[in-house]
Amino acid sequence: MITSHNGPQPADFTDVRATNLAVVLRFVRESAPCSRADIAASTGLNKATVSSLVADLIDRRLLRETGLTENRVGRPATMLVLDGSPYAAIGIEVNVDYITAVAVDLKGEELLNWRRAFPGGTSSAGQAVAAVAAIARRAVSRMTKEARQVLGLTVAVPGLVDVNGSVRIAPNLGWHDADLGGDLAKALRDPGFPVLVDNDANLAALAECRFGPHGDVGDLVYVTGEVGVGAGVVMDGRLRRGGHGYSGEIGHIEIDPAGPECRCGRRGCLEAVAGIGAILAHTAPGAPPAELEAELDEVVRRAGKNDPEVLALLEAVGRGLGKGVAIVANLLNPEVVVLGGYYVPLGPWLLGPAQDEMLRRSLAPAAGGCRLVVSTLGHRAAALGAAARVLDSVDSGRLPPRP
Amino acid sequence: MITSHNGPQPADFTDVRATNLAVVLRFVRESAPCSRADIAASTGLNKATVSSLVADLIDRRLLRETGLTENRVGRPATMLVLDGSPYAAIGIEVNVDYITAVAVDLKGEELLNWRRAFPGGTSSAGQAVAAVAAIARRAVSRMTKEARQVLGLTVAVPGLVDVNGSVRIAPNLGWHDADLGGDLAKALRDPGFPVLVDNDANLAALAECRFGPHGDVGDLVYVTGEVGVGAGVVMDGRLRRGGHGYSGEIGHIEIDPAGPECRCGRRGCLEAVAGIGAILAHTAPGAPPAELEAELDEVVRRAGKNDPEVLALLEAVGRGLGKGVAIVANLLNPEVVVLGGYYVPLGPWLLGPAQDEMLRRSLAPAAGGCRLVVSTLGHRAAALGAAARVLDSVDSGRLPPRP
Repeated sequence: MITSHNGPQPADFTDVRATNLAVVLRFVRESAPCSRADIAASTGLNKATVSSLVADLIDRRLLRETGLTENRVGRPATMLVLDGSPYAAIGIEVNVDYITAVAVDLKGEELLNWRRAFPGGTSSAGQAVAAVAAIARRAVSRMTKEARQVLGLTVAVPGLVDVNGSVRIAPNLGWHDADLGGDLAKALRDPGFPVLVDNDANLAALAECRFGPHGDVGDLVYVTGEVGVGAGVVMDGRLRRGGHGYSGEIGHIEIDPAGPECRCGRRGCLEAVAGIGAILAHTAPGAPPAELEAELDEVVRRAGKNDPEVLALLEAVGRGLGKGVAIVANLLNPEVVVLGGYYVPLGPWLLGPAQDEMLRRSLAPAAGGCRLVVSTLGHRAAALGAAARVLDSVDSGRLPPRP
Repeated sequence: MITSHNGPQPADFTDVRATNLAVVLRFVRESAPCSRADIAASTGLNKATVSSLVADLIDRRLLRETGLTENRVGRPATMLVLDGSPYAAIGIEVNVDYITAVAVDLKGEELLNWRRAFPGGTSSAGQAVAAVAAIARRAVSRMTKEARQVLGLTVAVPGLVDVNGSVRIAPNLGWHDADLGGDLAKALRDPGFPVLVDNDANLAALAECRFGPHGDVGDLVYVTGEVGVGAGVVMDGRLRRGGHGYSGEIGHIEIDPAGPECRCGRRGCLEAVAGIGAILAHTAPGAPPAELEAELDEVVRRAGKNDPEVLALLEAVGRGLGKGVAIVANLLNPEVVVLGGYYVPLGPWLLGPAQDEMLRRSLAPAAGGCRLVVSTLGHRAAALGAAARVLDSVDSGRLPPRP
């Protein structure tokens, strides 16, 4: 008989304090303002422990006391809120046609949000490292000027990233086996904070869970709408990466055996049928990546004017996308599928036909309750998720050193 | 900002003893024979706590002491092993052409294993309840004669089972909104143990994790090879059921838009292309379900004699199946996909072409490390998993009352 994975895990008692610090930090994140007594009552930790943990968190400027007292029977209590003002988490996304950088504080408030055109599809991995390093240095420098300590930097990449953070393949960037994290840390001259690399769809899914409007949803799939199409799979409240970290590769599932050839060499892949490239192949064949955003603006403009050619195209792309979403709905039964990237501005035309296909092709009634929506985070989703991954590691108890 | 699902969970301190009992039970399951000191050293629980927990577990006859002592420096220690001899967990599978019943003890040793033909495809839900109740009564009676307390009974059903155990749709059984668990508990006259209902593929996946030869695999997908085709999805060591419990509905994903019509009314579903019915539609069209097993034996016999017609058929079915497996590999990146049911005897002819399609259609090199294998549990997998679900609830700390 093999190890059963379904039993409870014994607690690792060496980590008890880190875990409890994280529990308190997370409780305040979700319930602030709140008192030490509230924390004790809700977490089951005893009051003396809570006081000691809170003192530690105040000392690290992760929490602060407010002057407020609760209006209640008994002694007035000092209220606690998240502080984190001396900290910043940086997220960067590198993609086929742009680089995005964001920074957030511990509360998730956005501190900066930059986006610039970048010819990712025609640059080498070395050129990408240089470009990412340049924008990272500027972001770090801005945070330092604001007297913030950078907790970490994560880079989102549209491709297979293994569990160690190596980019195995990024088809639309033309990268193979690139140690982006290592190269970037070198380019930043050992910056003194962790530099991580992760898949863009995974990170965007994290961002939807942390910053999106989905309430207490535990089962969510995010679908990127860039030149590449990928998915991030959240089940039971956590990102599920699969055995080697390659889950969510929806872009090269065959949707239409008679469909167009895909850049991967196969035929009728979701990406070839319903990726952004499939739209531009009709409206602006041969347009260089740098003009992709402008060309899509033009598609949106023509659709808004009921251009019949564009409407028929978007209807077909929406149906192709819906076939992919139906596969996700049947196999994973998510509560919500979030369409991101360029799918957001195209949502008014894509959502209807996509939803129709999802419903027609799902065995469960009403697609098992799955809602299909567009992201409210827009093109920032992956970079925000990259920053969220830094915050997650703080929330898991890896606290920054005392400032 | 919404609740982050990615932080650590505060422990529920009212459950500490139940959790710790479960931790000890599970440690002994995996490491027996072992001493109280071993348990303390490995779990981090202190020795006095371990002694008290072990006393409780011995009292309930879940553990027992052996005469053995470890050959080591210092005082010889009494060794502990699983007992559980006074208990039994019963699992029953009802399917289109058979009912299977198994019982196992706490160690997972098989106590009984019955299989009989049953015309599930043409019976009403009421007739199925009567048939399941009859076999359940006989199994309970056998366990009672052996002086075993029945810990629980789970029924595996090929269909959508919601999180409350109601069968929403079982397409190949023709059931809609059937409260099988409730009806069965009534038919058994409130038997004094829990009666649960779950999806057959989910339970078979649990059985593979607990009883299969997969080592410490955390990401596994089980695919049923019955008249219906379904999947059970295990990621990060646990069954992932999705938002409403309907995950794993791989059978009605479109594999070939030009493929044969499916019983669900769609066209080219995996089930229609690569289900057992797809084989028999060629070799024995119109054969009644009761003869399904005999007809498949005949297919295996003809394949064994290199009958070119059958070989070509199985090659095509294997390719269709591989297209479905490729979707799973791309989307979930499992370490292993296990083919069960009638796919097991057909494995020698199906595995090759299926693996070939999986490799051709996966974006990740070598299908992301995914291995495609046939189950070693055969037709017992779902029923064994049904019994395993009962054991899981013991392992999670829901201990039986003292005998």
